[in-house]
Amino acid sequence: MDLSTIKALAFDVFGTVVDWRGTVIRELEQLGKARGFKADWAKFADTWRTKGYLEATAKVRRGELPWMNADQLHRRMLDELLTRFGIEGLSEAEKNHLNRVWHRLKPWSDATSGMKRMRKAYLLTTLSNGNMALLTNMAKNAGLPWDCVLSSELVKSYKPDPRVYQMAADLLGLPANQVMMVAAHKPDLQGARAVGMKLAFVPRPKEWGAKKGGDYGNEPWIDVYAIDFRELAAKLGV
Amino acid sequence: MDLSTIKALAFDVFGTVVDWRGTVIRELEQLGKARGFKADWAKFADTWRTKGYLEATAKVRRGELPWMNADQLHRRMLDELLTRFGIEGLSEAEKNHLNRVWHRLKPWSDATSGMKRMRKAYLLTTLSNGNMALLTNMAKNAGLPWDCVLSSELVKSYKPDPRVYQMAADLLGLPANQVMMVAAHKPDLQGARAVGMKLAFVPRPKEWGAKKGGDYGNEPWIDVYAIDFRELAAKLGV
Repeated sequence: MDLSTIKALAFDVFGTVVDWRGTVIRELEQLGKARGFKADWAKFADTWRTKGYLEATAKVRRGELPWMNADQLHRRMLDELLTRFGIEGLSEAEKNHLNRVWHRLKPWSDATSGMKRMRKAYLLTTLSNGNMALLTNMAKNAGLPWDCVLSSELVKSYKPDPRVYQMAADLLGLPANQVMMVAAHKPDLQGARAVGMKLAFVPRPKEWGAKKGGDYGNEPWIDVYAIDFRELAAKLGV
Repeated sequence: MDLSTIKALAFDVFGTVVDWRGTVIRELEQLGKARGFKADWAKFADTWRTKGYLEATAKVRRGELPWMNADQLHRRMLDELLTRFGIEGLSEAEKNHLNRVWHRLKPWSDATSGMKRMRKAYLLTTLSNGNMALLTNMAKNAGLPWDCVLSSELVKSYKPDPRVYQMAADLLGLPANQVMMVAAHKPDLQGARAVGMKLAFVPRPKEWGAKKGGDYGNEPWIDVYAIDFRELAAKLGV
């Protein structure tokens, strides 16, 4: 396919750029060790992500929950999980710090080097359901070289609502077909496809841990399939 | 004053970070030479800025003009100026390129080095009436090290509307008094003051050329007065 018209790459972040699960489990384990809490931290992290974020953002999108940004959704679930897992005695400052573990997620090992190559030829932006503060703090903390930080928060909805993708193209001053969405999740790419973006699929089979399967195969409607950001950079010719 | 609570610096851009007038005049002169146009290019640039942008953004803010972003306001005035200055025969592509001179503005000589120092201790964001695409392209072109790009476009108004400053604090997840507005223009600082931001004044007496006077003195309500970004960095202790 002709990639010469692409000016900007819009990246999904959780799972695509950063290893949310590994980072969250690691911080929970450290907290548990420091404070003497024992729990199935992988289950804690997975529930936080699944119920607290993926299901909650879908409810906001469908109007079943009022608008709340990712920090607010994360906190809502965190309070529930602390009770459910019997973790007591954390101060408000400690809870707030723990909730912001999502601001401190670490990139996959190929991500930053691949981004630096792609940034020479393309404008790189986030296009995430994470809120602006979360994404900006994460970038600063992890050294992610974005040109611009964009979030579904700017339209108070969540991907895969097509309005989120259209917002990004509009704010970048580009027709949608000059923007390529890069994501590890097909529903995200389908949302981008609905507004006419180009599509790069970078499956991350370790996102949910070593054992869990997923939908990692290529599709005819995907423009570029790459196993990581280094391969994506190479396929984009940079 | 106590600066220890400040987490983020929000910068005005045109005039504060970049020398819009010098850059625009230089490009107009080059275009004139290449295409055989003669005109008072300083007057062209100053009118573009004053009538096409400063007066137009005020009209949008007061509801006398419908919402248009900076690119659209610039283009509206450019078409009028080309007629007024008798410049004929430019193609649509050439006009569009010229209009985007505002995406290619060059920083003052102290700006980038001062920003790099401040970025180590603070989150740096734009808070400009320029639109998101303009600011992002400018940063990429000039190598300005922002953590985040924010524009009044996100609330479809213009500074000094207090909603613009409040939007920045909200999106950064910070109370307004943890954000310091950095600007070369007192009305901008007064807008930031209205929502409770800290205020840094960096006068730029060469913004309008060597001869023109301006309001460059310190004020009791300003928190930090600095003659350039290096002095600002030093006064912020970085």
